[in-house]
Amino acid sequence: MAVAAYLKEIMNSPDSSAIRRMFEEGAALKRAYGDEAVFDFSLGNPDVPPPQRVLDTIRRIGGENPCGVHGYMANAGLPAAREAAAKKVSREQQTAVPAGCAVMTAGAASALNCVCKAILSSGDEVIVPAPFFSEYRHYVHNFGGVLVPVMGKREDGFSLNIDGIAAVLNEKTAAVLINSPNNPTGRIYTAAEIQALAQVLEAHGKKTGRFAYLICDEPYRAIVYGGNTVPAVFPLYKNSIVVSSFAKDISLAGERIGYIAVSPDCEDAAELAAACVFALRTLGFVNANAFFQRVIAECWDCAVDAGQYERRGRLLMGVLDRVGIDYVRPQGAFYLFCAAPPRGENDAGDSRAFTEHLKKHLILCAPGDGFGCPGWFRMSYCVSERAIVQCEAALCEAVRSWRAGDMGES
Amino acid sequence: MAVAAYLKEIMNSPDSSAIRRMFEEGAALKRAYGDEAVFDFSLGNPDVPPPQRVLDTIRRIGGENPCGVHGYMANAGLPAAREAAAKKVSREQQTAVPAGCAVMTAGAASALNCVCKAILSSGDEVIVPAPFFSEYRHYVHNFGGVLVPVMGKREDGFSLNIDGIAAVLNEKTAAVLINSPNNPTGRIYTAAEIQALAQVLEAHGKKTGRFAYLICDEPYRAIVYGGNTVPAVFPLYKNSIVVSSFAKDISLAGERIGYIAVSPDCEDAAELAAACVFALRTLGFVNANAFFQRVIAECWDCAVDAGQYERRGRLLMGVLDRVGIDYVRPQGAFYLFCAAPPRGENDAGDSRAFTEHLKKHLILCAPGDGFGCPGWFRMSYCVSERAIVQCEAALCEAVRSWRAGDMGES
Repeated sequence: MAVAAYLKEIMNSPDSSAIRRMFEEGAALKRAYGDEAVFDFSLGNPDVPPPQRVLDTIRRIGGENPCGVHGYMANAGLPAAREAAAKKVSREQQTAVPAGCAVMTAGAASALNCVCKAILSSGDEVIVPAPFFSEYRHYVHNFGGVLVPVMGKREDGFSLNIDGIAAVLNEKTAAVLINSPNNPTGRIYTAAEIQALAQVLEAHGKKTGRFAYLICDEPYRAIVYGGNTVPAVFPLYKNSIVVSSFAKDISLAGERIGYIAVSPDCEDAAELAAACVFALRTLGFVNANAFFQRVIAECWDCAVDAGQYERRGRLLMGVLDRVGIDYVRPQGAFYLFCAAPPRGENDAGDSRAFTEHLKKHLILCAPGDGFGCPGWFRMSYCVSERAIVQCEAALCEAVRSWRAGDMGES
Repeated sequence: MAVAAYLKEIMNSPDSSAIRRMFEEGAALKRAYGDEAVFDFSLGNPDVPPPQRVLDTIRRIGGENPCGVHGYMANAGLPAAREAAAKKVSREQQTAVPAGCAVMTAGAASALNCVCKAILSSGDEVIVPAPFFSEYRHYVHNFGGVLVPVMGKREDGFSLNIDGIAAVLNEKTAAVLINSPNNPTGRIYTAAEIQALAQVLEAHGKKTGRFAYLICDEPYRAIVYGGNTVPAVFPLYKNSIVVSSFAKDISLAGERIGYIAVSPDCEDAAELAAACVFALRTLGFVNANAFFQRVIAECWDCAVDAGQYERRGRLLMGVLDRVGIDYVRPQGAFYLFCAAPPRGENDAGDSRAFTEHLKKHLILCAPGDGFGCPGWFRMSYCVSERAIVQCEAALCEAVRSWRAGDMGES
C-alpha cells in the first residue's frame, strides 16, 4: 500500500508540474489578495469565448435527446465526427484524408498518449525540438520511451535545428514530434524547415530501414497572426500524423475533444489507425465524449477571433519592451517566451529564481526549465487587456529589484 | 515506422478485444440482414434512457454559457463535481468522504487506469476474482503490472474464493480488484465475503509490511434487483479505493464521466489522491469533461429504473430455461453469464466455438475466455423485451444444431 516509488519521484521533480503547480499557487494567491491584484500569466487557458455558432450548437444539442445519443459507440468515434475531422485535416493538409484515418480523442493530450502507445516500444526515442510543451516528457515516458530534446536555433527564433536532429537520429528513433505554432515560443515552422526535416528523415529511413514518424501537434493552428499560416506537412513527408484538439481554436479546452489524423500516404496507415484506436480503448478513454463529438461534427470549421490574442500579444510586447525584457516575437498561439533578465554582468538568467521573484510581486509566469530551456520563462496572454496594462508597474518594479539583487518581500 | 511489435501481438490475441470485435461484426451483420434480424447480446451498452432530471439538466446547462465554463480547471475536477461525488460515496460507503478524496475522471475505465498508474511499479501484481471484466488485463498491463486471476467458487455463483486469494498474495501484490455487481456474472459480493477478504489482506499486510489496496469497481451499484444492495467496503478495510462512473447508473456511457474516491481512512489517502490526479493529467485525460461534471454536480443522486433491466433479465432467463442453457442468476448489472452447452457427453463446452456457432444464427454473445472463464459466455440484456422474446426460436434452433454437431451455415 503505497504510491509507486518511481511515480513519486517524478511527481516531486521540479519540472514535472511547474505550470500546474503555478496554477494552484495562483488560485491561493487570488484567494489571499483578490483576483484583481494577481497577474496570472502562467496557464494557457483560453478565455476568449467559443464562437457563437459553437454556443448555439451546444444549446441545440443539449435540448435534443434522441434515443441512444449518450451511449457507447465504436471506439474511434461517431462517423459524423470522424468525417468532420477528416474534412478539416484534408483542407489543412492539402491531402484527401478519408474518415478511416481520423480517430476522435479526448483532446490533443489524449491523442498524443494514444500515438505514443501505438508506436513506442521500451527504449524507443522521440526527438523533440526545444523549447517544447513540458507535458511531452510524460507522454513519452508513459510508454517506456525516451524524449530527446534538440535545442532550436536561438538566433532565428528557435527555428528547427535540422543538423542537430540529424545528429541524434538512430535506430531507436520512433518519431520526431513538432508543435507548430509552438508552445512556448509561438514559432510556426516554415514549409522549408519541414521540407529539410523530411529529407533528413527520408535519408535516415532509407539507410536504416526504420522510418521515423513525424508527429505534428497543431492545437494552435487557427491562432496565427499577421497573415501567417501553418504549412501542410502531409505533402512533405508521407509517414506523418497530425494530432490536434478544439481546445484553443474554438476555446473548448475543458471539454476534452480532439483527434488523431494519420496521413493516408503513411505506409501502414490502416494498421497505425487501428493501433491508435486500440490504445484509446485500453488506456481507458474508450471513446471521445459523445456530446462534443456531435458539436464538432457541425462546428469543425469554426475558429475564435485570433485578433483578440494578437492585440493582447502586441500590448504585452509593448510592456516588455519598456521594462527591458527580451522575448521571441510570436507568429501564433498565445505565449511570449522571454529571456530571464540577468542579475549581474556574468549572470545567464536563472528563470526559476526569476519567476519565484515575480511571484512575490504577484506576477505568475512559467519557468523555462520545464520547456527544456533554462534561462527563459513563458508568459501566457490568455488574460484581459486591462490586466496586461495594469501589470506594467508591478513588472517594472520586480525587474528593478531583481537587477538590484533585492530579494526581499515586495 | 511501425506499430510497436508488443502491441500488435496484444491486438491480435483472441481475448484482447472479443467484445469490441463482436460489436463491429454485429454492425456489419445488421447492415447485411437488417437491425431486426440480428439478436445482439454482445455489448453492455445501456439503452434505458437517462432519468428525466438528467436530460433536463443537460438541456439547461447546454443553454447556459457563462464565461469560462468550457475552459481548463484544476485537474482533479470542478469543486462542485468533486463535492457531489464525495457526497454520493459518503452515502454508499457509510463513511464521511471529503471532496479532496474524490477525483473526477473520464469514466471508470479512466479511473482504473489512473489508479493503476498511481500504484503499480513494474512486476507488481493485481489479484482479480474471475470471471472479470476483460479490459482489466490491459489496464494492469499498461503500467507493467501482472493480472492474477483467482477463479470464484462456481458452486456458489462465483462467490469470492478467499482461500485462493490468500494463496496468491505475496510481496508483489499491489491490489485486489473487485467488481460488484460483477460483470459478467451479476454477482454482488456480500459484506461477509468482503469482511473475510479484508481479514486476509490485513493479516498479509501485517506479516509482510505491504498492505494491498482493495479497489472496488462499482459502475453497476444502482442496478440491483430483488431488494439486494451493494455493501459498503470502506468500513471493512481501510486501504480501499472506489472507482465508478455514471455510464450505467444513469445511462451516460458515451459521455465519459466517472470518479475515483479514496477512503479517507487509507493510510496515504492524500498522497494517493495526488498520484491519481497526476496520472489523470499525464495520461492525457487532463480533466473529466467540464460539461458532464456540471451535470453530475446536480444529478449525482439520480439512477435509471433498474426494474426495466430486471424484467428483461427475467424474460431472458425464461428463454434460457426453455432452451436448456445453464446460467448464474444475477443480483445486479445487466448480464447473464451462461455455460456453453456441451456438444457431446464428454465435452466441457467450448464457448468460443459456441459463440461462433450462434453468430451463424445471427445471435451475438461474448465468449467467456476474455473474462478468464472458458466454457462460459455472456449475454447482455441491454436489448428490448421484444428482441428477447423473438430470439427464442433462433436460439433454440442454434442449440439443437450445436448439440447435433451440425456446424453448417444456418
